[in-house]
Formats: sequence, structure tokens, C-alpha cells
Amino acid sequence: MRKPDASFLPHIARMVGYAPGEQPRGRVIKLNTNENPYPPSPLVLERLRQACDDGLRRYPDAMAAGVRQRLSGLFDLPAEQIVIGNGSDEILNNIVRAYAGPGDAVAMAAPTYPYYRKLIELQDARIVEVPYPDSFELPPELADQEARVTFIADPNSPSGTVARADQVRAVVERAAGVVVVDEAYVDFSETGSIDLVRQHPHVIVTRTMSKSFSLAGMRLGFCFAHPDVIAGLWKVKEHYNVNTLSQVAAEAALDDVEVMRENARRVVATRQRLSSRLVGLGFEVWDSQANFVLTRIAAPPAAGLYEQLKERGILVRYFDNPRLADCLRISVGTDEEIDLLLEELTQLV
Amino acid sequence: MRKPDASFLPHIARMVGYAPGEQPRGRVIKLNTNENPYPPSPLVLERLRQACDDGLRRYPDAMAAGVRQRLSGLFDLPAEQIVIGNGSDEILNNIVRAYAGPGDAVAMAAPTYPYYRKLIELQDARIVEVPYPDSFELPPELADQEARVTFIADPNSPSGTVARADQVRAVVERAAGVVVVDEAYVDFSETGSIDLVRQHPHVIVTRTMSKSFSLAGMRLGFCFAHPDVIAGLWKVKEHYNVNTLSQVAAEAALDDVEVMRENARRVVATRQRLSSRLVGLGFEVWDSQANFVLTRIAAPPAAGLYEQLKERGILVRYFDNPRLADCLRISVGTDEEIDLLLEELTQLV
Repeated sequence: MRKPDASFLPHIARMVGYAPGEQPRGRVIKLNTNENPYPPSPLVLERLRQACDDGLRRYPDAMAAGVRQRLSGLFDLPAEQIVIGNGSDEILNNIVRAYAGPGDAVAMAAPTYPYYRKLIELQDARIVEVPYPDSFELPPELADQEARVTFIADPNSPSGTVARADQVRAVVERAAGVVVVDEAYVDFSETGSIDLVRQHPHVIVTRTMSKSFSLAGMRLGFCFAHPDVIAGLWKVKEHYNVNTLSQVAAEAALDDVEVMRENARRVVATRQRLSSRLVGLGFEVWDSQANFVLTRIAAPPAAGLYEQLKERGILVRYFDNPRLADCLRISVGTDEEIDLLLEELTQLV
Repeated sequence: MRKPDASFLPHIARMVGYAPGEQPRGRVIKLNTNENPYPPSPLVLERLRQACDDGLRRYPDAMAAGVRQRLSGLFDLPAEQIVIGNGSDEILNNIVRAYAGPGDAVAMAAPTYPYYRKLIELQDARIVEVPYPDSFELPPELADQEARVTFIADPNSPSGTVARADQVRAVVERAAGVVVVDEAYVDFSETGSIDLVRQHPHVIVTRTMSKSFSLAGMRLGFCFAHPDVIAGLWKVKEHYNVNTLSQVAAEAALDDVEVMRENARRVVATRQRLSSRLVGLGFEVWDSQANFVLTRIAAPPAAGLYEQLKERGILVRYFDNPRLADCLRISVGTDEEIDLLLEELTQLV
């Protein structure tokens, strides 16, 4: 028998696995992965239960026609400008795969969503990080990186900050390649760049139902772009990428979008209270328009505070990143959960 | 404003979209995409309904620990040798992405599952098709293609035929790279290569719950391989690739695997009856161990027969492939559906 070469492609072998946020089971106040503290629309759960039947033996609709039709109505864009993903992560993955080959620059302002790095590494493309200033204002140099793909997370994670519309527009107008505006948290903000899709064939706006729609468990994302861009992304995506029940959930959620908006309003109100209280405790807090806040802890050390909160059953996010060594990201939970967090913090600092 | 270059990577731009099998809505006898005619286990539907609750706002288990633990028990392989996919299509996609770069050979005996071609094109890798003889015996030259990845669909689609164990072993022992045995239809057969995974670190066996488990709508696949292979595939896959309800469905299906086996036995019995009757009508039929049969129609032309059946509300599969120009692939439906098909065929030939 010959010795087979079962080695991975070199850039795959070099990759370090991506560590998703902790998903503990059991009784924990979970403020670490930006899930919505409120349940999805009752209509979603009702339609899902009804759809748990013999129909599951059939393949899902590869076109996700029902979901795309509803999004088309809601956002006033034709269905040819919409594609649905197994989470917006799949869409981001497919975008990088469609546009960036080995050595190609993919740019982002950093720190931002760490998953972008994995997607770029998968393509053996080149990660170009332009540092955010401490204010987390969008750095204009982001446009000057000769990047095939430029990511703008808006609102950004982990800062929660939004980019000014004129700053996003300036990057779009000067970028060398496609610009992806990742709007995972947009429903908690007053920002949004879908209008840019109408004007620019190189702008892609991605969204998710994981946060505002309380459907992280169903893995649903979507994006808007020029029909030519969508046609290309269609070639890259798995044919049956979104399963039957996820499509049912998405359709129902879009049929009852007011529940999402009401949940988002509650989260925003709690976020504002959390931010003020953190400032009152002496923490620095960036101005968030997402469902989380980033806060800088002067003393005690943030890593220690993360551990102490964890021991007390409260999970927040600490990042293994020098820029964020003195920071914690706290997802906005229910008022009750945030009160418990604030009580513990008051004792610990 | 500068003119941005929003062109796709050249190999993506060259791709033609993949056309999945037709998924008509409405009253059609659907014998074209190898779905199971029988429903999934009642336990699956019951557990799914119970799981349609507030928990959907949380991310799924990125490790799919419950599913992997059950597969580990059922197949007597440690969980470190198992990864779960959003359909086995996602796993096949990730395998090609992990092993085959631009220009690398990926080999298969043809005709086979057409989706492999799309996955290879996505990597700008080189498609190497070794023709099957008319008998659909596995061609030994498949091992000699210096391929980074070699696909063996066993049972093969669209022929339904199985490879002999010694033939699979010979390819495994001589192949230059990894060998993927795609066992999508294995539960309708008496074949299976999981033992090769125990002996060879370059063998990957993939399976799906779409066919035998009647769960095409839930997109569930899994694969077995050496722990080092699995660790690499883990880096390539989306972190949250299988959603919460799909994991619930998979766990329940594996807790009630006897329902799958009983459904498979019924399908096999109907397949045998269908094959004999087709032979009686003068058709040639390959010896199938899958949930479909490939049949050669001397006269009338197969394409015309496909259309006539479609007009009569019966959908079978006709392939746009010269090797299959005189063939139809017929999925095994219920006995009732197959009787109706046979009635129509009797009139049409």
C-alpha cells in the first residue's frame, strides 16, 4: 500500500480553530453572546409547531421564496436582490469565498467581529486590520487598503458604536472592491445602509435574525445587494442551505415584525439604564446602539472581574485581545438580569 | 468616486449555477429527488414540537454534542471521529475546501452525484471523471488519478449500484489522497465502509438523514474519519452550522432508529417490485441498493417519457447527460405511488 498524502491545504493546516462564545447549560445569567433576552413572536412558535409534520421528509425550498418575498415587501427591494443564509455567518463566508482569493486583501477596522478573520484565513486571503481610534470612529483609511472586500460592522461589535453615514459613504465611494456592511445589530440602532445598495452595485448589506428577532437557534441571515452580486452568491451557497423549519420561522417572524420591534425597544431602554449605571460605578462606557455595551474597567482588572462574575453565575464576554484587555462586553439582558449584574458589580468594584 | 472592482474571482464567475431537482408544490407524485415516502419517527415530530419554545433565542450547541454522542454509540466510534453538517452537502463542501486547492485533482467515477462538480469548481480544483463501465462497476483506475480527494458514492447515484468491498479497498489502498465514501443511500443497502475509517486515516465516510431518516427538510449530515481529519474539518465548518431544531430532530431520530430501519425495509421491498415490473415492461434496470432505480428505456425516448409522465402528474428524474440520455431515475415511493407510475408506464410504452 502506498502512503497517501492526507495533509490539509497549507493555509487550512495553519489555521487555529475559532472559539465561539461559551454556551453553558444550566442556571447562568448569560450576557456573553448577545442573544435576545425576550422570546420570539408567539406566531413563530405556533407556525413552527404546525410545521413539524410529514413535510420534513421533503427537501426545503432552495429558493426560500416565501422568506425572500416578505423581505422584499418589508425593505422595498426586489427578491432578486436578496439571498438567505444559514445565519449571516454563512453569507459572510460566501462573500469572502466569492471575491477574495489567496493573498487578496480583505480589510476591516479593528477590533471587530473576530469571525471575519476565520473566513479570510479559509480563503488564504490577507487580513488587513485598520485600527479603530479609541473613540471607535470609522477610520477613513479603511478605504485605502486596495481590498477586494471591506467589512464595516455597523453597529460594530464589541464596541456597539455606529459609524456616521457620511463616513460609511466615504468608504463606499473610495473602496477598491466590494463593501460589506454587516448590520447584525441594526434593529437596536438608528443607523442602516440599505439605501446604499440601491445606489452602488458593490455594496452588500447583511443582517441576521439571531439578535433582534430572538432566533439565534434557527440560524437565519439575509443580505441585500445588486442582482449581479446576488446571482454570484447564489452560485457559491449550498443549494439547500436553509432548512424547512428555519424558513417557516423566518416567514412567521416577518409576518409579526412588531414583536421584534417591541423587544428591541425594551432592550434599548435597558441598555440606556445599564450604561448610566456603569458610568455611575466609575466605568467608561462606549455609546452603544447595539444590544450590548462595551465598558472599560480601570480597577480591578477586567479579566479578574470576568472570572468573579462567572463564579457568581453571570457570564459576560472578555476578549483575548490586547486592545480590549481592560474591557468587558455585556449583553443586554432582562431588567432583572441587569439589576443582578449591577448588584454584583457594586460589590466587586 | 473611483470605479470599484466588484468582479467575482474568475473561477466563480465562470461557474454555472447548480440546478437542484425540481421541488414542485401541489399534487404531484414526486419520484425525482429520492426523498423517503414515509414520515420520520413520531418521536422526532413530538420532540420538535416540544422544542419550539423560548430556547430558540439562544445559539445552538456548536459541538452538537448530543447528536455526536448518539452516533458514537450507534457506530462504535468516539465522538472525536464525528462531525455534523447542515446536510452531508455541507460536509462534502468542507472536505473539498480543506484538501483541494486551485488545479488539484479531485476524482470520481462518472456519472455520479452532480453536486461534486460544483464543490470542485468552487475551489478552482480540477474535475477528474473516470467513466463507469455500463455495468457501473467501480473502475480500478479511479485510484490512479493522483487526486487530492477521491469520491466514491456507494451506493452510487444515479445508478443505485454498489461497489464491491474489495474494489473500494483497492482504491483506498492505492489512492494518492483522501478517499470519501459518500454513503447517502447506505441504509437501503447491504454495503458500508465505516470499518475502513478504523483502519485508514485518509478515509472519510459521509452519511445523511435526508433519505433513510425521512428528514431532507432538516438538513442533517454527518461524517466519520480519523480524529486529525475531523479536527481539520472542524476548522473549516461554520461554528453554528446545525441549528437547534435540527439537532433535536437528529437526536430523536437516533433514539428511535428502528423506525428508520422499518421504513428502509418497506422501501427496499417496493424497489424490488418496481425493478421486476420495469423489467417485465421491457426496460433495462440496474441492480439498485438505494431508494431509487435507474432504468434504460429503449423506446420511446426517455426525455419524452419524462415529459409525458410529468403531464400526468408524476415527476421522475431525467439527466442532462449524454451517458444517461436514454435513462430515467425513479425514486421509490409508496406502493400506491409506484402502482400509479406502473399503470401510466404500461400505457405509454
